[in-house]
Amino acid sequence: MEPAAQKTNYSNLDLVDECDSFPYYQVDPDLYAASISTYYELRVRNHAYGIGYLLPSVAEVFRGVPNWDLNDADRILTLEAGDTAAERSAAVEQTLLALRATGHFKVLDKWRDELYAVYGRNKELLFNVERSAGPLFGVVMYGVHLTAYVRTKEGEIKIWTPRRARTKQTYGGMLDNAVAGGIASGEDPFESMVRECAEEASLGEELVRKGAKACGTVTYHHIRTEKAGGETKLLQPECQYIWDLELPKDVIPKPGDDEVEEFYLWSVEEVQEAMRKGEFKPNCALVVLDFFVRHGILTCENEKDYIEIVSRLHRKLEFPTL
Amino acid sequence: MEPAAQKTNYSNLDLVDECDSFPYYQVDPDLYAASISTYYELRVRNHAYGIGYLLPSVAEVFRGVPNWDLNDADRILTLEAGDTAAERSAAVEQTLLALRATGHFKVLDKWRDELYAVYGRNKELLFNVERSAGPLFGVVMYGVHLTAYVRTKEGEIKIWTPRRARTKQTYGGMLDNAVAGGIASGEDPFESMVRECAEEASLGEELVRKGAKACGTVTYHHIRTEKAGGETKLLQPECQYIWDLELPKDVIPKPGDDEVEEFYLWSVEEVQEAMRKGEFKPNCALVVLDFFVRHGILTCENEKDYIEIVSRLHRKLEFPTL
Repeated sequence: MEPAAQKTNYSNLDLVDECDSFPYYQVDPDLYAASISTYYELRVRNHAYGIGYLLPSVAEVFRGVPNWDLNDADRILTLEAGDTAAERSAAVEQTLLALRATGHFKVLDKWRDELYAVYGRNKELLFNVERSAGPLFGVVMYGVHLTAYVRTKEGEIKIWTPRRARTKQTYGGMLDNAVAGGIASGEDPFESMVRECAEEASLGEELVRKGAKACGTVTYHHIRTEKAGGETKLLQPECQYIWDLELPKDVIPKPGDDEVEEFYLWSVEEVQEAMRKGEFKPNCALVVLDFFVRHGILTCENEKDYIEIVSRLHRKLEFPTL
Repeated sequence: MEPAAQKTNYSNLDLVDECDSFPYYQVDPDLYAASISTYYELRVRNHAYGIGYLLPSVAEVFRGVPNWDLNDADRILTLEAGDTAAERSAAVEQTLLALRATGHFKVLDKWRDELYAVYGRNKELLFNVERSAGPLFGVVMYGVHLTAYVRTKEGEIKIWTPRRARTKQTYGGMLDNAVAGGIASGEDPFESMVRECAEEASLGEELVRKGAKACGTVTYHHIRTEKAGGETKLLQPECQYIWDLELPKDVIPKPGDDEVEEFYLWSVEEVQEAMRKGEFKPNCALVVLDFFVRHGILTCENEKDYIEIVSRLHRKLEFPTL
C-alpha cells in the first residue's frame, strides 16, 4: 500500500487551522459547548475559575490521588494543596514524579527538568509545572519567537530560516523561526530571547539587545496531534512573544547548539513555497504569517482570509494570561 | 452642582475596554450567555446563522413589517425578502426609509446616503445597508485607518495627530488617526484609503500608493454609548484595515475638508498623554495602541496588560467577515 499522500498545498488559513485548532465559541456555540463539555477544567483551591483543560483520560488518573479533587458532576479537577505557589508547586511535582515513575504518560518520557509558570486572574503565580507536563493540564505556556531578516539594496526582505535538527524530539527536520524557545518560570521574556539568540543562532548579545524590536504576541490554542509526539488530543494554549531583528548583511546566524541543522537566507517567495508545502513547524508558520501581515507582504488584496487570519493569530485565550 | 469629573487617567486596557466593550465568552461563559440572551439575532432567509445582534427595543419595531419575521421563541429576526443581494437590499432600504420617515430612531436622523455591505459565511454579499442604520442591526462594518508618522534624525517617531472638527456629528473635537473612514459597499479597502488620504489630509496619491504599508486589521465589538450620539447600547462590531505611512519631513498633512480642525506632529509621549486623558476617539485609540505594539513602543516590559491588549485589538468577531 502507498503511504497516504502528504498534503502539499496548504493555504494560509489551513496553516492557522492546523495550529489554532481548538474550536471557537463564535463560530458555532452549540458545537463549542459540546466539545468543551468533554474536558475537565483545572482549578486551584479558592480560585473559582479554570486555568486549563484536561482530557477525561488524563483527569481520571488524578482520582483519589492526595492533594487532588476530581468532581465528575461539574467536571472540575482541583488542586487542593496549599495556599502558596511554593506549596502548590511542590504538590504538582510530587504527583508528576509519581506519574512519571509509572510510565503512564508518554509526554512525561520527555521530562525536561524545566519549570513553567501558571498564572491566575490577578497575574499572580499559582504554581510551577514541569514543561513536558503542561499539555497534560492544558495550561497556557509562554515562549519567545524572533524573526531575523535582511533587507537587500533593492529593499527586498530575505528571511533567515533554520531547519530543525532531524534528531530533535519534536518536529524534527521541520522549518523554524530564526530563534524560538520556551520561557522558564521567573524568566523575563526579553532576557529569554537574548539567551536563545546566542544559543540557537550565535547572535551577539549587543546586536540583539540593540536591534530586536518587540512586535506583539501570537496566541493560539492547539490540540496536539501525532506530529508533537506523545499523547494526541492534549490541549496546548500558547502565547509567544514576538520580536523582529533586521540583521546587517555580514551577520550570518549559525547553529549554536545541536537543535538546528542549517540556516537558509530565503526570499519571501521561497518561504511562502515552504509554507504551502507544510514544511514549517505549525506555530512557527503562524509567526511567519504575523511577520507577513505586519510587513505588508500579506494584504487584503492577496489573501482572501485576511481578516480571519489576523484575528486568529491573536486569539484571546480561554484562560488567564500573565 | 459641579459636573461629574471627567476621567483623566485611562490605562491602555481601559481604552481597549471602552471600545471593545462587548463581553467575551472566555471570561465568564454564564455572564456572556445571559448578556447575549437579551438580543435578537439577525438572519437572512435560508442562512442558518447570525449576522448581527439587535436590541429587543429595535427588533420590536420589525414586528408585522412586510419582509421581516420576528421569532420571539428563538429570538431571531429574519429578513425574508428575496434570494439575491439586490432583492434583500431593496427590502432593507424600503423598511429603513419608512422608519426614517416616522422619526422612530435617532441614529437615522444622521442618514448618510452611503451603502455598507453585509457579508455571509462564504464572503458573499448578503445585502447593502444605509450606513447610519448599521448599528440598529448590529452588523459588522468596515473602515480604513492610516497612521502617518515621521522619523527624526535621531530615529524618534513623531505621529501626525488630527483633531476632529468640533462641529462633527460624532466625537467632535476628539483626536483621530491621520486618515480614517468607512468603506462603502463595493469599494476596495486600499482605494478607499487612498481617497480618504486626499480628502482628509491632502496627501498626494502617488506618495500614498507608494508609501502606505498594510499592517493588518484592528477588530473590536463596541457597545455604543452617548459619545456616539443616537440610541445607546446599540451593537457595533467593526473591522478596520490598517496602514502605516512614513512621511518625509517636508510633507505636512492639511485638512482637505471640514472634518479636521488641525494636525499636530506629536512625540510618542505627547500622544500617550492625550491617550491617558481619554482625548482620542475610542476606536482611534485602539489603532494607536496597535501602532505602538508593532513599533516596539508598547512592550511586555512597560505594559502589564500586554498579552490581553494585543489579543483584544484583534477580536474574532461574532459574525462572518469579508
